[in-house]
Amino acid sequence: MTPEVIGFAAVAVCAVTGVLEAGRKPMDLFGVVVIALVAALGGGTLRDLLLDRRVFWVADHRLLVAALGAGLVTFFVARLVRVPPRLFLVPDALGLALFTILGTRIALELDTHWLVATLMGVITGVFGGILRDVLCNEVPLVFGGELYATAAWSGALLLVALRAQGVEGPWLQGLPMTTVFLLRMAGIHWRIHLPSFAMR
Amino acid sequence: MTPEVIGFAAVAVCAVTGVLEAGRKPMDLFGVVVIALVAALGGGTLRDLLLDRRVFWVADHRLLVAALGAGLVTFFVARLVRVPPRLFLVPDALGLALFTILGTRIALELDTHWLVATLMGVITGVFGGILRDVLCNEVPLVFGGELYATAAWSGALLLVALRAQGVEGPWLQGLPMTTVFLLRMAGIHWRIHLPSFAMR
Amino acid sequence: MTPEVIGFAAVAVCAVTGVLEAGRKPMDLFGVVVIALVAALGGGTLRDLLLDRRVFWVADHRLLVAALGAGLVTFFVARLVRVPPRLFLVPDALGLALFTILGTRIALELDTHWLVATLMGVITGVFGGILRDVLCNEVPLVFGGELYATAAWSGALLLVALRAQGVEGPWLQGLPMTTVFLLRMAGIHWRIHLPSFAMR
Repeated sequence: MTPEVIGFAAVAVCAVTGVLEAGRKPMDLFGVVVIALVAALGGGTLRDLLLDRRVFWVADHRLLVAALGAGLVTFFVARLVRVPPRLFLVPDALGLALFTILGTRIALELDTHWLVATLMGVITGVFGGILRDVLCNEVPLVFGGELYATAAWSGALLLVALRAQGVEGPWLQGLPMTTVFLLRMAGIHWRIHLPSFAMR
Repeated sequence: MTPEVIGFAAVAVCAVTGVLEAGRKPMDLFGVVVIALVAALGGGTLRDLLLDRRVFWVADHRLLVAALGAGLVTFFVARLVRVPPRLFLVPDALGLALFTILGTRIALELDTHWLVATLMGVITGVFGGILRDVLCNEVPLVFGGELYATAAWSGALLLVALRAQGVEGPWLQGLPMTTVFLLRMAGIHWRIHLPSFAMR
Repeated sequence: MTPEVIGFAAVAVCAVTGVLEAGRKPMDLFGVVVIALVAALGGGTLRDLLLDRRVFWVADHRLLVAALGAGLVTFFVARLVRVPPRLFLVPDALGLALFTILGTRIALELDTHWLVATLMGVITGVFGGILRDVLCNEVPLVFGGELYATAAWSGALLLVALRAQGVEGPWLQGLPMTTVFLLRMAGIHWRIHLPSFAMR
């Protein structure tokens, strides 16, 4: 998987989550398309602005086309086939895994400090979903607990550690991605929450 | 109309809409000024960040002065003369038309892909109004239907098509601007909505 | 006080306000850390994007570490010692003063027009707090009246005036900072509000 392939996969998967969430609201086609674009492009856009790179979908319009295409196909499929609401959590976890590792890798390649790079990964992974949920008037998944940002950050840290050990090839990205995805799925399945504190 | 004149007109007209909307809320003068600035400068600022240009009002402070001036004048006029609430839709449609065509044109001149350029036009046209409505705790006009973003996108596509045909001079911008404005006005007058879909 | 020292102090103080506000909400540790980071880094990040500088905490990761450290220390202290809720207004006013003057100064050094520079100062000073309050579902302090943005803007204008008079050394920044802090404190103490207008 080259970074380019990961980028297309992440954009498409996140556009799908946008349509699945927006499609349940009273919205016209335009609204659904906007939510799909925001979910697919939001995280990477913020990363590129913060890292002072060219915004990825301005530099390569095929990613915008991919987001539009995946969104429209999902829209028409979802009108024909009944999609169980919770199914939407699977592409969302996949998008989280793909975008987090891609974002961390891009930041590392620009010689960003490793701590900043893992934060860039988390931002890339979670920000599109936050915007999607806010526009759909839902509590963002990232604030709902259940190992969301924690899963993303663990994967980003693993990527940094593997890279520091000189690991290369498919393992370097495959292992952290799998970690993010499985941690998030485990968090949903067993309802694992970070401890909640209250001040006195 | 040079791009510079269009820019000043768009900024002033959008500052007016900000004051007209904010002035109906329990807000102090500072709040009204902030909303006017956000409405006038928000869309173009996001466009410039995405295109990696210098932010237009940082590069030319006269646009900031124009937004402030138009906002303050509107504020004092609106306290003397009763303004019918729906009148605010006219400068809003004008601002949409001016900013959309200006944004598309700026993006095209940077050799952006035409699909990305039309999206930049729509973003320039609608984003200031979205921020204004969110800060005023109103549902953004763009999500209320009635050919808002659709009108903007049609005009942006028309500009791209005219340019590809080699059209130049005043028609190149005048025709798409008129299209956006009239489509939006028609949408309000005949309450034209995009079809609304619901998933199963 | 060099700009570097001011930057660290501002980041730390704003992280403290984030924890003090977020810690009163039902949030897990991750949520509290996010709010602390957003409060500490949000204003400067927007300033750097608008001025097309490298984002300060991407350029120097020690500021990110400072925000994290100040946030975590506050978190554990606040669980042991009871903090009166209104105490949070003091570090908030301090952060406003530090960030406003730092932001104005950075903008002036980039040869930005003085009016734009003072606006950059106000943005640096207030934006982190706006994001913090929105994420905590509170009305942003800046919209609550009581000389918030007005205090910041007065200090920024004073810095511009002193600089134009050729003032240098510690007074150049110390005087405007003290002005912002005292105006804000006076605003809270005597509940000074800007006049509120309503349109007919």
